[in-house]
Amino acid sequence: MMHADFYIPTHLFFGENALNKGKDMLTAAGRHAMLVTGKQSARKSGALADVTALLKDAAITYTVFDGITENPPLLTCFEAGRLAAKEGAQFVIGIGGGSPLDAAKAIAAFAANPSLSPEDIFDDKKRINPALPIFAVPTTAGTGSEVNNYSVLTLPSGLQKKTFKAPDSWPRAAFVDPRYTATMSNDTTLSTALDAFAHAMESYLSPRSTLFSENAALFAAREIFDVISALPTTYDAEMRARLALAATAGGMAISVTGTGFPHPLGYSLTLLDGIPHGRACAVFAGDYITYNEKSESGRARIANFAAAIGAKPAVLKAFLPGVAGVSLSMTDDEIAQHVELIAGAKNYANSPYVISKEEIFEIYRAHFKTK
Amino acid sequence: MMHADFYIPTHLFFGENALNKGKDMLTAAGRHAMLVTGKQSARKSGALADVTALLKDAAITYTVFDGITENPPLLTCFEAGRLAAKEGAQFVIGIGGGSPLDAAKAIAAFAANPSLSPEDIFDDKKRINPALPIFAVPTTAGTGSEVNNYSVLTLPSGLQKKTFKAPDSWPRAAFVDPRYTATMSNDTTLSTALDAFAHAMESYLSPRSTLFSENAALFAAREIFDVISALPTTYDAEMRARLALAATAGGMAISVTGTGFPHPLGYSLTLLDGIPHGRACAVFAGDYITYNEKSESGRARIANFAAAIGAKPAVLKAFLPGVAGVSLSMTDDEIAQHVELIAGAKNYANSPYVISKEEIFEIYRAHFKTK
Repeated sequence: MMHADFYIPTHLFFGENALNKGKDMLTAAGRHAMLVTGKQSARKSGALADVTALLKDAAITYTVFDGITENPPLLTCFEAGRLAAKEGAQFVIGIGGGSPLDAAKAIAAFAANPSLSPEDIFDDKKRINPALPIFAVPTTAGTGSEVNNYSVLTLPSGLQKKTFKAPDSWPRAAFVDPRYTATMSNDTTLSTALDAFAHAMESYLSPRSTLFSENAALFAAREIFDVISALPTTYDAEMRARLALAATAGGMAISVTGTGFPHPLGYSLTLLDGIPHGRACAVFAGDYITYNEKSESGRARIANFAAAIGAKPAVLKAFLPGVAGVSLSMTDDEIAQHVELIAGAKNYANSPYVISKEEIFEIYRAHFKTK
Repeated sequence: MMHADFYIPTHLFFGENALNKGKDMLTAAGRHAMLVTGKQSARKSGALADVTALLKDAAITYTVFDGITENPPLLTCFEAGRLAAKEGAQFVIGIGGGSPLDAAKAIAAFAANPSLSPEDIFDDKKRINPALPIFAVPTTAGTGSEVNNYSVLTLPSGLQKKTFKAPDSWPRAAFVDPRYTATMSNDTTLSTALDAFAHAMESYLSPRSTLFSENAALFAAREIFDVISALPTTYDAEMRARLALAATAGGMAISVTGTGFPHPLGYSLTLLDGIPHGRACAVFAGDYITYNEKSESGRARIANFAAAIGAKPAVLKAFLPGVAGVSLSMTDDEIAQHVELIAGAKNYANSPYVISKEEIFEIYRAHFKTK
């Protein structure tokens, strides 16, 4: 029996003036908004100014929380949630890359449940009140967070990420205007595109994939590979639009399937070594192909995937870690620390071939054991 | 700029035991349900028994309204809505073909707004309370009503259809179990498949189509054409599953775009001449291609569509009206009556080539003027 369940309740407005097309949904959500951003991209892209102009027009007041850092810390979201409750925010708008978007989901839950302790957010029974309505305005083309209910948070130790995911953490609407991605550096453009590609490939291979998620994953992978395999030195408006829609499609795909092992393996590189998330995942894209080719169904899936995007498995194995361009050197002890921190991830089971802890060691050693 | 807006809030559970997979959503919706069915297919297919068993297990009471006839009359929905309110129904489950599913949406609106007069349902300002939650269990593979917010109702004259569509008339969940379609006759299987094919083709050609709706439309058309072009004398479980998923994909596609002129032209044949809806639309599929080929963009779209499903435009022009097998004979006056009743439809503007009233006459004459 084919798999075909489907659920994406987010209303997607895509393209130039996306905010304007969907502004009625924003202005119907309440009288005071919490705007969640990082320090830079929300302002630089013009997205924050567009949102605030629209709110002012509708006489909706707002509080800006611009303290979201990369790999958003659970404790920052907790504090922002308290602030949102104190200010009487009735809805939350995340504006920026994956970090503010993921943070907005956690903040919406904390704001509606002021008695939660930070770690309580992961406990479905403790979140009693429905989260505030969430809206997402991405300024990168990678995360896909605007069309799923995942919020990847950094735990207080600063060494581990944990995914918060609730039935009410889907954005009510996503406003994807590719123009907001135009101020990204080439470096960030590539890193975030690699994140979206990882979503597409890991989703396509997942045993949980459905006809709908497969379509979205192949569309995303094809578009991204087509754009980045040319190794562009500048990204024009059309390329930005293709990447933006591809990233959104990738976010839809993983909303069905979740991600595979490159994600946790990448988390350790991001938190311990400061490697941006997309590049950190792409380091392991070749390994993902190689290990999955050990299983018959994995080999067939990889072959389909590569053919559908006009590539070959061997090309992807070389190309993706190559453009990620990550060069690190670790001792055995350092590798062990990286592996221990991600040993509990659930992603390993989510591919045709399930890697063991020993194999995770092997993968890290092959890449980084030079000390 | 590419079109890519997207919004399908319905939770789709597809496949064997779809009801069981999603039963928590049903049982969380209230303590008393209104079950909306026609006279036959809900019972014959086993769907009604499965729904009632599940409700009984959860100690949820229910009222069965089995009075929905083909091309559901507005007045029947109005009465059923009053009954639902009187019985204290908190949610509505439509079980059957397109008629009970469409009716369930209207009934959910009437039940929540007992002061509406029948025609008030079309007035967004008069429907003050949100509709009761709606669930859909299709027993045919055609309508797609389970994944959109359209409800096509027959007006009190009995001569015209009008579409009711509200932001809260999306089913909360759709339970698409292809086994429920196994008791359909070959005749109904073909007619409903032709309806789904019409959705796919008309959606693909619509100027409102998006990358998402196009994907869904092509998937639907390819699957249906593949199954029915072999003119099967029996439909096995795999064929039924393919048609069921294709019909659902077609319903998603038209949720974005709406339908084109074969739909209104077919309505007159259905209400005045008793031709089943799917066949009635298929009569005009060749005309839809021919007229759209008069515009450059229409010609290109038709060529893409045909190529993507492994057909040629000329083959589709002959095949679709051919299998519809509708033979009618009309006088000029009768043709004029057919045309007048559908003159106000909005569908005409929804294709690359916009046909005129005179052209609608031409089309009817070419098919039926034998008296």
